[in-house]
Amino acid sequence: MIVVELQPKIEETQTRPVAIGSDLNVGGSDIVLMAGPCSVESYQQTRAAAEAIYSIGGRVLRGGAFKPRTSPDSFQGLGLKGLEILRAVADEFGLLVITEALGVEHVPLAAKYADIIQIGSRNMQHFPLLWAVGETDKPVLLKRGFMSTIKEWLSAAEHIAHRGNEQIIVCERGIRSFDTATRNTLDTNAIALVKQSSPYPVIGDPSHATGRADLVLPAARAAVAAGADGLLVEIHPRPTEALSDADQALSLAMLPRLAEESGRIAAAMGRRLV
Amino acid sequence: MIVVELQPKIEETQTRPVAIGSDLNVGGSDIVLMAGPCSVESYQQTRAAAEAIYSIGGRVLRGGAFKPRTSPDSFQGLGLKGLEILRAVADEFGLLVITEALGVEHVPLAAKYADIIQIGSRNMQHFPLLWAVGETDKPVLLKRGFMSTIKEWLSAAEHIAHRGNEQIIVCERGIRSFDTATRNTLDTNAIALVKQSSPYPVIGDPSHATGRADLVLPAARAAVAAGADGLLVEIHPRPTEALSDADQALSLAMLPRLAEESGRIAAAMGRRLV
Amino acid sequence: MIVVELQPKIEETQTRPVAIGSDLNVGGSDIVLMAGPCSVESYQQTRAAAEAIYSIGGRVLRGGAFKPRTSPDSFQGLGLKGLEILRAVADEFGLLVITEALGVEHVPLAAKYADIIQIGSRNMQHFPLLWAVGETDKPVLLKRGFMSTIKEWLSAAEHIAHRGNEQIIVCERGIRSFDTATRNTLDTNAIALVKQSSPYPVIGDPSHATGRADLVLPAARAAVAAGADGLLVEIHPRPTEALSDADQALSLAMLPRLAEESGRIAAAMGRRLV
Amino acid sequence: MIVVELQPKIEETQTRPVAIGSDLNVGGSDIVLMAGPCSVESYQQTRAAAEAIYSIGGRVLRGGAFKPRTSPDSFQGLGLKGLEILRAVADEFGLLVITEALGVEHVPLAAKYADIIQIGSRNMQHFPLLWAVGETDKPVLLKRGFMSTIKEWLSAAEHIAHRGNEQIIVCERGIRSFDTATRNTLDTNAIALVKQSSPYPVIGDPSHATGRADLVLPAARAAVAAGADGLLVEIHPRPTEALSDADQALSLAMLPRLAEESGRIAAAMGRRLV
Repeated sequence: MIVVELQPKIEETQTRPVAIGSDLNVGGSDIVLMAGPCSVESYQQTRAAAEAIYSIGGRVLRGGAFKPRTSPDSFQGLGLKGLEILRAVADEFGLLVITEALGVEHVPLAAKYADIIQIGSRNMQHFPLLWAVGETDKPVLLKRGFMSTIKEWLSAAEHIAHRGNEQIIVCERGIRSFDTATRNTLDTNAIALVKQSSPYPVIGDPSHATGRADLVLPAARAAVAAGADGLLVEIHPRPTEALSDADQALSLAMLPRLAEESGRIAAAMGRRLV
Repeated sequence: MIVVELQPKIEETQTRPVAIGSDLNVGGSDIVLMAGPCSVESYQQTRAAAEAIYSIGGRVLRGGAFKPRTSPDSFQGLGLKGLEILRAVADEFGLLVITEALGVEHVPLAAKYADIIQIGSRNMQHFPLLWAVGETDKPVLLKRGFMSTIKEWLSAAEHIAHRGNEQIIVCERGIRSFDTATRNTLDTNAIALVKQSSPYPVIGDPSHATGRADLVLPAARAAVAAGADGLLVEIHPRPTEALSDADQALSLAMLPRLAEESGRIAAAMGRRLV
Repeated sequence: MIVVELQPKIEETQTRPVAIGSDLNVGGSDIVLMAGPCSVESYQQTRAAAEAIYSIGGRVLRGGAFKPRTSPDSFQGLGLKGLEILRAVADEFGLLVITEALGVEHVPLAAKYADIIQIGSRNMQHFPLLWAVGETDKPVLLKRGFMSTIKEWLSAAEHIAHRGNEQIIVCERGIRSFDTATRNTLDTNAIALVKQSSPYPVIGDPSHATGRADLVLPAARAAVAAGADGLLVEIHPRPTEALSDADQALSLAMLPRLAEESGRIAAAMGRRLV
Repeated sequence: MIVVELQPKIEETQTRPVAIGSDLNVGGSDIVLMAGPCSVESYQQTRAAAEAIYSIGGRVLRGGAFKPRTSPDSFQGLGLKGLEILRAVADEFGLLVITEALGVEHVPLAAKYADIIQIGSRNMQHFPLLWAVGETDKPVLLKRGFMSTIKEWLSAAEHIAHRGNEQIIVCERGIRSFDTATRNTLDTNAIALVKQSSPYPVIGDPSHATGRADLVLPAARAAVAAGADGLLVEIHPRPTEALSDADQALSLAMLPRLAEESGRIAAAMGRRLV
């Protein structure tokens, strides 16, 4: 049996933590769990998700209000009403909110209702949007394009920083490969590389990176083990009825299991999950 | 802070452990570390690597004797002499040996000198070779083709099993993506998926999956966190002088660090590194 | 020697031609050449390109006024002034204009100055932009995302058509593969498949699809032979001094050669290049 | 209308023609059509294909005798009997034969029965096989690995040439991309690049490059337009009953159409199809 006694040591990083709300940091010793539904569908659905997060001690609620999707006939989100629900529910439980700005015109709304503005994978190189969030004073979570190199991803972050906003968190959400067994391929190499070479905290999205609820837990563990500073996870009170991304949403009952397993990996890394 | 108290639980698996030597199992609760040089270059070099493995309590020595490479002008391996060195050094330290059979004609030699016969990524669909190892009584480690789907990989394993040899371990060694920042992309989704859906133990090769020594440790941790049953790692007494794969070999001094970090993740998974 | 005498026959297509200006159709028996600089850099540069197009009997001038690029420090285009130059030069030679709308806010400008509004590859799934051009009465050229499936590409076209504008031309401009010998990989299969299964005319962009001036001519021929209804080509009076995409721009002196070779393939297809 | 009168001019190439049989060259001004069934299934089936080739003036019959396939339960070929059928039928019509050597042990057989020995895509980096054909005096057709870069492909050719056999033809047969609408993606850029930078004639395989009979003709035309020196096409008397690759085989009735269309593109290139 291998037993090696060494001082715990995380790789040296350049990470510059980003403050969220008044008492949370992404990119420090804490690993931040962000969870919620893909789309805000109703007050009840969102409140149930928020309660599940609150119950395990989580701090950040995610949810999409603008959800244009590949097919124009799919559910496209609740819009402003979705943002209102998200904020109201988050306030009820003392949670912070992350939501996506889909276009330049959504940026003021997202900045008003959310604590973190998300830029989606398909928009990673939509430069007018990058410039617009670069001119706000809100933390930005920049998802990697599923077809973008690490270099292009970090260059996209520079487009934001260039406009004055350096509160940037990047998010690895899986890349497109030749294999269709999973929706995307989680790129843990990218997580490790960003930690070593960039100032931005990096979080993992095991839901999009796998597209399958049954693979979300191992992907979350792998992301944390590779050095991720947080997790962004889709949960739903009734996954099979979700109006978007039904295949990859965890049930609320699975959230404690995700937190427990990810938390143990975090502890093995000398960090803690919050 | 998130604290969830649950019984430790690994995903349910179908894994059927494979016995190596007289007292080692791949695919049970132990996670097996296999390490050594890419190419056997000399007795001294191989002995130094074996000693490093022995020192931390490791059990398996890897090394290549036949190393045809992309360019015909590169170092092509020591051949039979390499196998003899490998066996002699392993016996000196009581280690088991894994080595690659490059062609059908190498199978009897590999079966004679090694405890596990490796099929390389470029040969994953070289069917005559699969059939040849399928007719031996030695455990086989089948590397995934770097652009093969999970389905093709498991079908290749069936070609071996079909000939009567079911002692098969599969190895995720990174797939080729559009990003060239790393040599390959470690596919942790594939590790998790094989654990759920296949009878074969699966190990991770963080050396080829990254191609960069500075990313081997996080990749090894991610593989273990995703559920890998073992690790296959390249080490070298003087990495910069290695005749093949110099960029990705860990120095011997880094091996205890790899073992310590991977061992902590293994423990968080309720397993132990051997 | 093989000599087979058959009636010329192009594959049966569903293509619904799109009228451009008063006397040009894309998607009928003519194959439409569109050429011009990547970026409008000056009146002189644009006029030289337009003159070269006019000299060979070409009808459509391309040029970019808004050019945000991967790095925020690169040349970002002349903006409105670029559109004015483009229109003035095109009018001088009786040419039609195609230019890109980079964001929703550019759509009214592009609709005012251009005859065809282009949606770039990075914006193929920027839905607010698709909706905005879907509400204009101008023909739209929708470039394929360089890592988008054919299905996603045609679904993006549906987002435009859904808003009422069915004057859609799609453009294959190369996809990202694992090989970096060329900037992208021209997907002639996609051209043939769109011709068979979709109502939209499809044109090929051999400049982006190769990223190398020395491969633009064979790529243009291949696109036409696969069934493309047009070509979109980057040309520059002094390619080595181009402020963007210098490696892939053809010199003006090469344009007649491109037209001659593509024209001969067009004739072999029973079509003509205009 | 664009009319440009220039001297016909093919790109300058480095191609060194390879002689096949007594009166055929691959890589000169002729474009060589090679056609036949994926697998030799019977004398009748093979003879029908050969007759169809002969009828249009074709010269080369292809057919596989050893066909191990992804699944071990699929049809695996007729072996030696397949080679005998192939030779007998070819001799009856005065055709030349190309067939695949699947492993080192097949090389003497293939050299005895065939005029060109084919190395399959999955074996492109099976080095012992490359060395074995490098020691014969037969022309070799080296298929590109569907996951191999152009550089790796040409390096594999060097492994053959290194052993003394420089009669090498390379074959672009499609690469694996993220899109599954077609089985593979024909890489016409690669054809053009090999013509410019390598001494080896290059042919296109539109059957594997598309995987769909309805796309074989446009792919064949595109390959010729990009500069290919030949075509390798799968045909079958009853495609729907083919024991392998049924989806991509052309019916015999389609062969004249393929020849006619490819022949017209060849003529537009200043070449002729044989």
